[in-house]
Amino acid sequence: VSTARLGLINPNTDAGDTEEMAAVARAALDSEVEVVALTAARGPRSIESAADEAIAAAEVVRMVADHPALDAYVIACFSDPGCQAARELTDAPVVGIAEAAFRAALMVGRRFAVITTLARGVPAIEEHMEQLGVRGRCVGVLPLEIPVERQGTAFPSSLDAISATGRDAVERLGAEVLVLACGAMTGVEAAVTQRTGVPAITGVAVGALFAHSLWRAGLRTSKVGALAPPEPIPYTGMAPLRARDTAQS
Amino acid sequence: VSTARLGLINPNTDAGDTEEMAAVARAALDSEVEVVALTAARGPRSIESAADEAIAAAEVVRMVADHPALDAYVIACFSDPGCQAARELTDAPVVGIAEAAFRAALMVGRRFAVITTLARGVPAIEEHMEQLGVRGRCVGVLPLEIPVERQGTAFPSSLDAISATGRDAVERLGAEVLVLACGAMTGVEAAVTQRTGVPAITGVAVGALFAHSLWRAGLRTSKVGALAPPEPIPYTGMAPLRARDTAQS
Amino acid sequence: VSTARLGLINPNTDAGDTEEMAAVARAALDSEVEVVALTAARGPRSIESAADEAIAAAEVVRMVADHPALDAYVIACFSDPGCQAARELTDAPVVGIAEAAFRAALMVGRRFAVITTLARGVPAIEEHMEQLGVRGRCVGVLPLEIPVERQGTAFPSSLDAISATGRDAVERLGAEVLVLACGAMTGVEAAVTQRTGVPAITGVAVGALFAHSLWRAGLRTSKVGALAPPEPIPYTGMAPLRARDTAQS
Amino acid sequence: VSTARLGLINPNTDAGDTEEMAAVARAALDSEVEVVALTAARGPRSIESAADEAIAAAEVVRMVADHPALDAYVIACFSDPGCQAARELTDAPVVGIAEAAFRAALMVGRRFAVITTLARGVPAIEEHMEQLGVRGRCVGVLPLEIPVERQGTAFPSSLDAISATGRDAVERLGAEVLVLACGAMTGVEAAVTQRTGVPAITGVAVGALFAHSLWRAGLRTSKVGALAPPEPIPYTGMAPLRARDTAQS
Amino acid sequence: VSTARLGLINPNTDAGDTEEMAAVARAALDSEVEVVALTAARGPRSIESAADEAIAAAEVVRMVADHPALDAYVIACFSDPGCQAARELTDAPVVGIAEAAFRAALMVGRRFAVITTLARGVPAIEEHMEQLGVRGRCVGVLPLEIPVERQGTAFPSSLDAISATGRDAVERLGAEVLVLACGAMTGVEAAVTQRTGVPAITGVAVGALFAHSLWRAGLRTSKVGALAPPEPIPYTGMAPLRARDTAQS
Amino acid sequence: VSTARLGLINPNTDAGDTEEMAAVARAALDSEVEVVALTAARGPRSIESAADEAIAAAEVVRMVADHPALDAYVIACFSDPGCQAARELTDAPVVGIAEAAFRAALMVGRRFAVITTLARGVPAIEEHMEQLGVRGRCVGVLPLEIPVERQGTAFPSSLDAISATGRDAVERLGAEVLVLACGAMTGVEAAVTQRTGVPAITGVAVGALFAHSLWRAGLRTSKVGALAPPEPIPYTGMAPLRARDTAQS
Repeated sequence: VSTARLGLINPNTDAGDTEEMAAVARAALDSEVEVVALTAARGPRSIESAADEAIAAAEVVRMVADHPALDAYVIACFSDPGCQAARELTDAPVVGIAEAAFRAALMVGRRFAVITTLARGVPAIEEHMEQLGVRGRCVGVLPLEIPVERQGTAFPSSLDAISATGRDAVERLGAEVLVLACGAMTGVEAAVTQRTGVPAITGVAVGALFAHSLWRAGLRTSKVGALAPPEPIPYTGMAPLRARDTAQS
Repeated sequence: VSTARLGLINPNTDAGDTEEMAAVARAALDSEVEVVALTAARGPRSIESAADEAIAAAEVVRMVADHPALDAYVIACFSDPGCQAARELTDAPVVGIAEAAFRAALMVGRRFAVITTLARGVPAIEEHMEQLGVRGRCVGVLPLEIPVERQGTAFPSSLDAISATGRDAVERLGAEVLVLACGAMTGVEAAVTQRTGVPAITGVAVGALFAHSLWRAGLRTSKVGALAPPEPIPYTGMAPLRARDTAQS
Repeated sequence: VSTARLGLINPNTDAGDTEEMAAVARAALDSEVEVVALTAARGPRSIESAADEAIAAAEVVRMVADHPALDAYVIACFSDPGCQAARELTDAPVVGIAEAAFRAALMVGRRFAVITTLARGVPAIEEHMEQLGVRGRCVGVLPLEIPVERQGTAFPSSLDAISATGRDAVERLGAEVLVLACGAMTGVEAAVTQRTGVPAITGVAVGALFAHSLWRAGLRTSKVGALAPPEPIPYTGMAPLRARDTAQS
Repeated sequence: VSTARLGLINPNTDAGDTEEMAAVARAALDSEVEVVALTAARGPRSIESAADEAIAAAEVVRMVADHPALDAYVIACFSDPGCQAARELTDAPVVGIAEAAFRAALMVGRRFAVITTLARGVPAIEEHMEQLGVRGRCVGVLPLEIPVERQGTAFPSSLDAISATGRDAVERLGAEVLVLACGAMTGVEAAVTQRTGVPAITGVAVGALFAHSLWRAGLRTSKVGALAPPEPIPYTGMAPLRARDTAQS
Repeated sequence: VSTARLGLINPNTDAGDTEEMAAVARAALDSEVEVVALTAARGPRSIESAADEAIAAAEVVRMVADHPALDAYVIACFSDPGCQAARELTDAPVVGIAEAAFRAALMVGRRFAVITTLARGVPAIEEHMEQLGVRGRCVGVLPLEIPVERQGTAFPSSLDAISATGRDAVERLGAEVLVLACGAMTGVEAAVTQRTGVPAITGVAVGALFAHSLWRAGLRTSKVGALAPPEPIPYTGMAPLRARDTAQS
Repeated sequence: VSTARLGLINPNTDAGDTEEMAAVARAALDSEVEVVALTAARGPRSIESAADEAIAAAEVVRMVADHPALDAYVIACFSDPGCQAARELTDAPVVGIAEAAFRAALMVGRRFAVITTLARGVPAIEEHMEQLGVRGRCVGVLPLEIPVERQGTAFPSSLDAISATGRDAVERLGAEVLVLACGAMTGVEAAVTQRTGVPAITGVAVGALFAHSLWRAGLRTSKVGALAPPEPIPYTGMAPLRARDTAQS
């Protein structure tokens, strides 16, 4: 079995988030997989609005173009910013953590709830679920009104809020799985599961594993059709985007 | 009746495209509406891939943030890059030309076909139609395999190709309206209608008119919920995004 | 810029409703647009059931056939009665106010609620939203249990009820826009917006503006396919329907 | 077992169509069921456009209101004109033949094709299928370009055309059942089945049987909610619609 | 009119259930129709889980294969276990009671609620409604938390619970019809209707009637395509499945 | 990292198929994962009809119940027979190969085609895609009319047919990925990819990897709600189904 190098792309500029997520990915993957953790150099320190996401998506595209030699990528922000665009720039598999979380949720349950940070983000999550074909399996998207920057293992009150909201989703709405819609929530899954009795998923661990699985199964991003390398369009004020040479794959 | 200032945002960096589209918008609107034409300062000269679009969307967000004093905006690229994000940054109405074109098409016909530049763009158009709720009214998305840069009134062969494809869509697929999925096709609509016998729409004229209509009807972008101004997140390496002061509206 | 004549078709027989709606349309449109207000000569004085709507739809068809020389039409009843049928009878653009209201709502917000008169009308509104592709963006259809005949600027208690229901929709359901599902509610939008903090839309103003916009953009109802003039079928007991001579357009 | 009286409502004014459809219904039902055949007194002699349908729907509503003493109704035109409105006017079950045909088709096959008269009617059929939730089971809607008035047992060339189109739908599109989308095609089903090898359904026989089945099962149209009797709205220029007294049921 | 033999297939092994359902079917059908009631010889005595259903579906297939001479079949368990598979084994029409109940509900109302036994069954019912295209017409699936074995006319407390839940569905959710999602609830419909004011449907009576209606209309299960007899695959450890000789039909 | 035992469940009775699929799974997984290959003891030697599938699903349920000590399961038949039922019987993750193949396809492409054995199976695949939310991403389901028993590495003509059909799907329909809808096609993916230029997926390798990934991410089948152990229903003629004691997990 060959060794793989997995790029964990953090679309925000908070290196602490990156390290927490990379640690989770490393714990989930075999020791022989190398996780290359990358933090956005520019843009928002956390992503709460569509405007933040638009800025971050452009950074994700650039980050993948700038790190072409990896075997698989996971985009570690729940809105999967720039995911389809990133796929154009590589023939390595690229997986978003929201996509991975929703897919995994439906392999271990029939109905899930989503717990997110701010209410303003609910419509975007609902539309992302539609685009992925899973909205009909979601019993509710429940905001905590606690921002990204106060999520994670360093914030016990956030864990309390997630757990209380999760129990409500299980008891009142019939949730069988909880999708935690924020990469920064990574690390609290086990505690949430213990407190609610149902699986909790951020998508960081399983997203890294699924990306690696695709690579192990010999699957590469299709270079025919929509995900072919970008056309050689002239760019103004910045270097044009160039896909990794696909001859090597 | 008060006078309005409409921002026509060209997400690509081709000022020629901007001028052609602005001329169409000016011809459609009352003389008392001022069209402020804006060209992206950075990024792709035309937009053919999701990667191009991701870069352009970030520019659109910045352009709207940098021109806050306008009464309405039209985003003049058929993928509507950055449209929801731009709405967060202003309480003026913001309309994308694809959105406008699809809406208009279904007000003058029951089934439309889409004519686009490259086959690689078909899935993105289909998913955009799903997001807008109109995919079930589309009889086909037909690529010309002629890139954006060779579209428009200066390219008679492109007009010929659009017309031939359009006639095929009418006769074989039952199209009643043709949606021309490229801002650079602006200017050929009348000729295409004459050659095919059905309405042809790029969305530039009607998008400008719809944006102005919203303003005239007293409608402003909702600042409650998803389209509220972005949260005051710290940004790295660039100025943070700030919405126009909504007190003025 | 040429002058247009817009037909505002009131499908019910209440001339007072017609005048209120026409006044709103005139205020929204340029002074150079002439609004020709037409009231149904026969049928229900207000429309609350599918049976009322079926009777009214037949009148709408007749009204459009009898007033062929107009440049655009708006059908000013929230169920859009006879809208597709009316389009067959003219090549002028025809816009329904429900269609216009839903389209406008999604250009200024990502989630809307609908406030309607009677609970019995909820399923028809839901199915109309499905047909228009917007049901997934609606957070709820909320009936006031106040009939059409007691809606409008002359009924302050109705305004109070709409505002209270609207605030509930915003706070509890996450509505970002309020669609007021009754033409007779026209005139209260600004007050509702002031009391709820979100845009309120009946579709009368924006429907008139969108119909005019289509005409200004040079768009005419497609005469190829479903919206071609009715076939020359013999009629019993009434004059057959004849479309306006399309040669003039 | 009590005896039932079934109203067969022909929305067009062609009494010959009524008689052919009534004969089919009588042959399908038990001899103890009385079929009361009703022909529209006013309106189009056949229904090919949305405008024709709007006129006919208003007549259907009036016909049901004028014949209140029946036990069940079948609306015998494939667009099911006025079906929901008619249900408001009675607590007897009301079934449309399109609804019945699609339901029956999916009980004897997994994929059906629709064969219709004119291409212009295709979008309306597709949207009716969406409203009924069956569009995803349809492999195609195939127009003959032969009008209603030349359909039926008296026109062998129409039978030939239906059969040829049906064979194409079976062989090329994978149709397992053929839905014949015109009441006037009634009578050719057996011959089409013989020539194509798959079930052919107009909905007249099975619609009459389903309406009777609902009555036999003790089911009555719900008078709570959307299908309650119309509100007592004043009518201008015509008698108001009044539902049958539901106390009798 | 010829006499028919209808197979009422009870997928569970409780002969008491079979007899109750057969009595209801006999009461609904003409005396000249013979109801052949069949109880599963093996498997669960009631069906509450997907595992129970999988076992029962295999029995249903075998039961239809073993009783080939009947004219129509109704599968009398609300999950319609093995319904499409059973159709492959016969050219007689086969109708599931859930399918029949949902179809009937939408012929007598525009919105229904489902009342079921255990909460664990809700996702399967929702997905079955999706598959049938009716989920958008359902206002809620409400579990009683009373198992199948304590449903039916012998359990007055279950009737009380159904009625109370039904009234809540009508008043709070806008249900116009109640679908009772358990064959064993057969017999309580009239009492539930009396107590709630809306039609209640288990699907047993109307399913038997619809199956008979298909047969009376001359419709047979299509033997072209998906429902053709199973391929002659070798079977291990059991007799292969063989369809009834279709030459007789 | 602990060692896992993965159950590869072949729902058909062909031990040769089992061995080929197990070999592929072993090659894809780490050497430290033990693949326990299980062949159905009873039922069809290959699965081509819904009847075959119903029999096989009951066997799958029994197989999982009889082998409770494994850490993850993959159900290795493209119709995913018994998948939700099997999940009730264990808290180990259970993945079907169709589910895995569709999920993987959309991580490496935006549009896929499905290549299957017989045309009769097309509707079931389409409905399975709907249930999984992916039908809108499929450009076509293309049957080879070559049965399961003649698929696989031992049949070069089948590889030729798959490759030719695949090239057609890529060139004519815009497929970017090929989903090979038959477990017995396992082993030909690499050759198909080489001949068509796009990824080919049966789901056996990636299904095994995804099941293992879920286990590695600490995810267990939710035992709250639909996938809880079956209720303790009495069974006739066979042992009741009992879930693995979940206390151990």
